Amino acid sequence: MNFSSKLLEDAVAEFAKLPGVGQKTALRLVLHLLAREKEEVARFSTAVNRLRNEIQFCSTCHNISDSAICEICSSPKRDHSLVCVVEDTRDVMAIENTNQYNGVYHVLGGLISPMDGVGPSDLQVDTLVERLKDGEVKETIFALSATMEGDTTIFYLHKRLKQFDINISTIARGIAFGGELEYVDEITLGRSIVTRVPYQNSLS
Amino acid sequence: MNFSSKLLEDAVAEFAKLPGVGQKTALRLVLHLLAREKEEVARFSTAVNRLRNEIQFCSTCHNISDSAICEICSSPKRDHSLVCVVEDTRDVMAIENTNQYNGVYHVLGGLISPMDGVGPSDLQVDTLVERLKDGEVKETIFALSATMEGDTTIFYLHKRLKQFDINISTIARGIAFGGELEYVDEITLGRSIVTRVPYQNSLS
Repeated sequence: MNFSSKLLEDAVAEFAKLPGVGQKTALRLVLHLLAREKEEVARFSTAVNRLRNEIQFCSTCHNISDSAICEICSSPKRDHSLVCVVEDTRDVMAIENTNQYNGVYHVLGGLISPMDGVGPSDLQVDTLVERLKDGEVKETIFALSATMEGDTTIFYLHKRLKQFDINISTIARGIAFGGELEYVDEITLGRSIVTRVPYQNSLS
Repeated sequence: MNFSSKLLEDAVAEFAKLPGVGQKTALRLVLHLLAREKEEVARFSTAVNRLRNEIQFCSTCHNISDSAICEICSSPKRDHSLVCVVEDTRDVMAIENTNQYNGVYHVLGGLISPMDGVGPSDLQVDTLVERLKDGEVKETIFALSATMEGDTTIFYLHKRLKQFDINISTIARGIAFGGELEYVDEITLGRSIVTRVPYQNSLS
C-alpha cells in the first residue's frame, strides 16, 4: 500500500501484526482511531501498555491476575480440594460463566503440541505436580479442548498424576470432537462439568 | 464476561470499541498482545498514540500527512491543474496504487449523507471552491463511491462548481452500483480514471 504518512503506515503495520487482522482491516481500525478524541485514543494505548507491564500471574494457579494470588485462589468460599486444569484464562472465564463450578483452577498456559514445538516443560505441569504433593487436593478435573492436543495433554498429565491418591476426571464429552472449549455454549459446558467421568486411558 | 483482572477487562473494553470487534475477538487480540514482548507492545501503543497526536492534514488537499503540505501537493512532477475529489485517504491510496493518475487530490473527509446527519458544511467543500478561484485548476474529477451518498455529493458539488470555467468529470462507471471505491480492483479503477466522462446531470 501507498501511505501518505509514515505515522499512518507505522500504526497500520502494528495493527496488521494482530491475529486475523490484514492490511485493509488494520487501516480501517487506524482511521477509526484517528477520528476519535485524543483522550479516548490515549486511554486505548494506556490500557494496552498497563496490561502488558502491570499484569501478574497468580503464583498458585497461574491465571491472569492483578495481585500475587488471584481472587479465586484466595477465596475461602471456594473448594480448594478440587482443582480444574485448563488451557488458558479464557477457559477459566468460560467455566466461571456457567456458575456450576466451586473449586479452584490450574492454568497450564497451553496444550502439548509436538507440531508447534510445545512440550510439557513449556507448560505449568511441574507446578501442578508440586501443588498436589501436600495431599490437600482430592480431585483433579481435566477441562481441556476435545482436540488432538487436548487428548495428548490429558494422556501425559494422567501419567504424571497417577502416583497421587486423588480422583482424576475429565469433563463429560458432550462437546463435539474438534471443538474449541471457549466457544461451547454455557449449558453444554456446565452439564459437562457436573457429569464428569473418571479418566479411562483407552490406549493402555 | 467474568474477568479475573481489571487490567485485562479495561484492555478488552477498549479493543471492543473498535468497529467490527466484539468481546471475544477483543479478548483474543488482548491475549495475543499479552503473549508478546514488552518492547513490541510498547511499540504498538506508541504508534497509536503518536498517530493521533502528531498526524497532520495537508492544508491544500486535506489528506493525512506528516507535514503541513503533503508530498503529492508539494511535488513539482504532479499536474496541479487536475484535481481529483475523493471521500477519504483510502481512496487516495487506491488511486495512487493504479499508477494511472498524475494530478493532485482534494479529500472531502466524507460524503453528504442526510441519514447520518452529514451535510456539506461537515466536509471540505468550501476549501475546494476556494481552491478553484485562482484559475490554476483546469479540470476536476469526481472519484466518489457509486452509492446514493456519492451521487448526492456529486450533484451538490456540481451545483457549487459550475460557476467556474473548468471541466468537471466523473470517473467512468465501470464500477457496479452500490460498490465501495476502496475495494475495487486496480485495473478497473485505473481504466475508470483514464476513460472519465463529462458530468451529465440526469436530474436537470
